[in-house]
Amino acid sequence: MPHILDGKKIAQKLKDQLKIEIEGIKIKCNLVPGLAVIQVGNVAASSVYVKAKTKAAKEVGINVIDHHLEESINQNDLINLINQLNNNDDVNGILVQLPLPKSINEEVVLNSIEPKKDADGFHPLNVGKLSINQKNDESLMIPCTPYGCLLLLRELNINLAGKNAVVIGRSNIVGKPMAQLLLKESCTVTTVHSKTINIESICKKADILIAAIGKPEFVNKDWVKKGAIVIDVGINRIKINEEKSKLVGDVLFSEVENIVYAISPVPGGVGPMTIACLLRNTTIAFKNSNKI
Amino acid sequence: MPHILDGKKIAQKLKDQLKIEIEGIKIKCNLVPGLAVIQVGNVAASSVYVKAKTKAAKEVGINVIDHHLEESINQNDLINLINQLNNNDDVNGILVQLPLPKSINEEVVLNSIEPKKDADGFHPLNVGKLSINQKNDESLMIPCTPYGCLLLLRELNINLAGKNAVVIGRSNIVGKPMAQLLLKESCTVTTVHSKTINIESICKKADILIAAIGKPEFVNKDWVKKGAIVIDVGINRIKINEEKSKLVGDVLFSEVENIVYAISPVPGGVGPMTIACLLRNTTIAFKNSNKI
Repeated sequence: MPHILDGKKIAQKLKDQLKIEIEGIKIKCNLVPGLAVIQVGNVAASSVYVKAKTKAAKEVGINVIDHHLEESINQNDLINLINQLNNNDDVNGILVQLPLPKSINEEVVLNSIEPKKDADGFHPLNVGKLSINQKNDESLMIPCTPYGCLLLLRELNINLAGKNAVVIGRSNIVGKPMAQLLLKESCTVTTVHSKTINIESICKKADILIAAIGKPEFVNKDWVKKGAIVIDVGINRIKINEEKSKLVGDVLFSEVENIVYAISPVPGGVGPMTIACLLRNTTIAFKNSNKI
Repeated sequence: MPHILDGKKIAQKLKDQLKIEIEGIKIKCNLVPGLAVIQVGNVAASSVYVKAKTKAAKEVGINVIDHHLEESINQNDLINLINQLNNNDDVNGILVQLPLPKSINEEVVLNSIEPKKDADGFHPLNVGKLSINQKNDESLMIPCTPYGCLLLLRELNINLAGKNAVVIGRSNIVGKPMAQLLLKESCTVTTVHSKTINIESICKKADILIAAIGKPEFVNKDWVKKGAIVIDVGINRIKINEEKSKLVGDVLFSEVENIVYAISPVPGGVGPMTIACLLRNTTIAFKNSNKI
């Protein structure tokens, strides 16, 4: 039987630790970390994520400041709001839920967030620090999804150094920072993507396979080495019939689970870890700015 | 016969282009790019590099401001100098020749350089921008050695997309930015290093092999696929006898040249490209700050 990496449980453990830490901060400083959550418009998936993030933040004692804006807001007004939040000492982390309406330039908006308040870890300064920093990740703002994947891997208590890790996908949000994190752990790291030739055979050699493609159940058993560890970043909604749908990952779980050493399920794998890591970043931002 | 990637010639071509561009800038703005070169102490290799960089900069019409400081300078005085240069409009690029004396924290010093004047492309903000930016590299400050390697590859006029690229080494100065640049070119990119298992067999599968290990003639023909492209970043001085020494790369050229499609020699390969790319960065810094 494979290890099923229970993201819900592991995220809860991290949230429990953060809760205790934040209670300690409150006693010591009479302050708690504050997270501003900005949602523009009413994309259904965004509303689900924002709700889940807000709920989790409150659970651990983070003060959430919600900004739900009209879809019609213009870019300058959005940036003005971010500037206010940049200058507000009660706000330690700022999260802009993506995607933004097409009339708004996401990169410009994300870059307007003060790097020290960049709860998602997407600002180029934080991206650069993650790449350069060799060892310590304690004070870094790290993109939540790949860091969540790393925490799942660490839960297995195996030595990651020298492992052959393959990351499928090269997005700024997952693939690239994932590769940096695995390199820091001294894995041999390969990034494969849409232009890769023989992608299956490269994946088949991976000791650790991270699937972040965004294609439902794309990775089947022919892609996976016996005894590998598979982390599934995908969250895809597929129709079962006219009325019902379900969430599946990028990995064909039912097939792959039989040959792996460990695998993360969807839902209940990477998803909860992403949220927990957002709370971690917010707490780190608080500690960095208050020099705790 | 393999293609020998003549770095001296290709660097000269880039310098000729920069010279013309800078002449144009001078006519248009009555200004030329300025590069401040800081050397601390008298490490022999550093003196050689500083001399070569200064000479090349002057050749293309860049104004060089030399700061040769005593080995005993303290970190604060060095940072004060950098701050002055940060605020000096005649200075577009600042280069701190490494290594610095052990009493000085290199990271702190490098991070004190204004990112827009960071001629070496080592500041985390520039590292992050390089990682995030998908296509255009025209306005980016990119670490000089890996960018020089990429320009050598481009000289072959082959389609890099889908090529299996292996980078040996994971330094901040070469290996990591090299991997980012090759990923941008849509290569499948693997980074191998001291902890990698079966490093030889991984390298043997590479269509493009970048050697940045710092071990003289370490990569022999058993590491290299027939028809591969090999870029040798190493510059190692080895003794021939009691009196004589010579420069060799990380690749055993005499053996490997017989099986490859193309290879860069040492000296005369990556080295001149590194210097030319420093001049490129300085010119880009000038154009960015003057909005040309």
